[in-house]
Amino acid sequence: MAKHDIGFAAVARLAGVSNATVSNTLNRPEIVAPATRERVLAAIEELDFVPNRAAATLRQGTNRLIGLVIPDIANPFYSAIARGVTEAAAEHGYTVALCVSHDDPHLELRHFEMLAEHRAAGALVAPLTADASRLAQLRRVGSRLVLMDRTAPEGTGCSVAIDDVHGGELAVAHLLASPAPASDRSIVLVNGDLAIPQCADRREGARNAFIAAGLDPDDLREVTVDEMTVDSGRIAGRRIAAETPRPTGVFCTNDQLALGVIRGLNDGGLAVPDEVSVVGYGDLALAADGRVPLTTVEQPKDELGRVAVEILLAELGADRAAHEHVTRTLEPHLVVRESAPLPA
Amino acid sequence: MAKHDIGFAAVARLAGVSNATVSNTLNRPEIVAPATRERVLAAIEELDFVPNRAAATLRQGTNRLIGLVIPDIANPFYSAIARGVTEAAAEHGYTVALCVSHDDPHLELRHFEMLAEHRAAGALVAPLTADASRLAQLRRVGSRLVLMDRTAPEGTGCSVAIDDVHGGELAVAHLLASPAPASDRSIVLVNGDLAIPQCADRREGARNAFIAAGLDPDDLREVTVDEMTVDSGRIAGRRIAAETPRPTGVFCTNDQLALGVIRGLNDGGLAVPDEVSVVGYGDLALAADGRVPLTTVEQPKDELGRVAVEILLAELGADRAAHEHVTRTLEPHLVVRESAPLPA
Repeated sequence: MAKHDIGFAAVARLAGVSNATVSNTLNRPEIVAPATRERVLAAIEELDFVPNRAAATLRQGTNRLIGLVIPDIANPFYSAIARGVTEAAAEHGYTVALCVSHDDPHLELRHFEMLAEHRAAGALVAPLTADASRLAQLRRVGSRLVLMDRTAPEGTGCSVAIDDVHGGELAVAHLLASPAPASDRSIVLVNGDLAIPQCADRREGARNAFIAAGLDPDDLREVTVDEMTVDSGRIAGRRIAAETPRPTGVFCTNDQLALGVIRGLNDGGLAVPDEVSVVGYGDLALAADGRVPLTTVEQPKDELGRVAVEILLAELGADRAAHEHVTRTLEPHLVVRESAPLPA
Repeated sequence: MAKHDIGFAAVARLAGVSNATVSNTLNRPEIVAPATRERVLAAIEELDFVPNRAAATLRQGTNRLIGLVIPDIANPFYSAIARGVTEAAAEHGYTVALCVSHDDPHLELRHFEMLAEHRAAGALVAPLTADASRLAQLRRVGSRLVLMDRTAPEGTGCSVAIDDVHGGELAVAHLLASPAPASDRSIVLVNGDLAIPQCADRREGARNAFIAAGLDPDDLREVTVDEMTVDSGRIAGRRIAAETPRPTGVFCTNDQLALGVIRGLNDGGLAVPDEVSVVGYGDLALAADGRVPLTTVEQPKDELGRVAVEILLAELGADRAAHEHVTRTLEPHLVVRESAPLPA
């Protein structure tokens, strides 16, 4: 089946439903029976279907409106990105349409439909999970799209990301840096689901730091949590406090986990940083003001938002044939506070 | 001069500049000389001028787009409101245009211009400072506007606010509640600028709690800070620790101040809560995870955003002649944690 032939009708035929049901599944899924909805979504996936109107107008939209598609606006990482995006957009006379996806691919598509209705000039998208078919689908919606906090595979589109491998390496190199031999150190990584690319990258960086210190990366002890929250961190911290040998340092792949781990270690009778050092990731507002001010990896969140807008506007201004995709990587840096001080 | 006669030309005449300069002052102020800009803004104010296009289309806009105009998206209070707004808007098929005003009336006007260009159906606005002429100006831009975190004067428009007087009373009543006689208690209020209505309201509530306990409200000791930040709180806390008589309780009108005050009290040798209790306001994420988990007043931020959307959509659906302005007030509640525990 030729690509241009894929439309509502083809999806409807494959799913054995009416065109209206396809439309409802995309636009008002709550009124479609779950089993029917699943059939339609399976057909959409099988056919690589993108609603035509969204595809057409996101490629052609001329309004000074930029879509910002993020998983959660109350998460301080994304609200800091949103600040950078809104400021850069306003400087260029653009308005930002805030689209919260809850990291749900179907909600994401509905947002694209709405952006298309408003003839948005393009969109900045931060997908949380790494599903390749989803990224491919987003790219088909329009090349006027910049991926944020994720590197687009070469030649597929524009993106701006933070070098989380380097960030993970900075964190663990700090925990290994001490006058004592690195081999006396025992480091625990507290991490989320490795399907989240940021978690995988930070872990890779942690292992790189072991290799750089002449250690076996498999000696990095790992604790995986279901949710990267303060509560999960606290449970992990209690567990770590009970383990032998006692760790000398804990690297948590976000600040919420780190705050929880500090509490859990304290619950288990271990003092931070006197007995164990803890490093977080993200440098959220709460990092500086916790029970023990947190050593953490600061990500240039505002800059990420600003750069995403600049890349998109450059793409809008460019001759389409001449446009070359831009892949930018921003560098994080270590902020040293009390939870893991500099070696004496 | 009749209202309909007020336009760019009238502003230009009064300011002694060209129409183009008036337009530039509103749309690209950075290219207008500061002195000229001031003249144009003074003329705008004197004439009660609202750019026609914005006024016209915000009253007539039909796109499923809602403007959300807030001072700062990285502030967790506003990002929580934004979450409620985006969720409620998405449920009704509306997109949210995120407009960050930095509490600058001129930026606010530029955002309204842009919302008008996009034919937004209406706007939700959270102005930080209380200037009456500014609220009047916003109302003239369009009645399709809902004030957030502020009560609109009767008959002037729709609004949804949080009862901060009640919130202040809850906080101080808690600090006064103890088996010991209330008259033995010494309470300090750490507050921001009283020109901010929320600061004035929380203070009024604090005084009400004194009256309800049979105390003289003028016995409430007050410390005013320039900025409601952790750093300002810390300085205030050190000062309070050095004062005689030593306070038994401190009420801070936001959580950032409270976290700083706890540190400052600790710096001055006072333990929280053993020697002094501290209550914050806002229940931000950092409140629960600070050095001492914070007793604070929780504001229904998500609900505020949701209710604002519902009020606006009801107004859009209503017959204009039949519409009656809606004023909603939401109730905060006290969250008791370690910094000010329940009386034994």
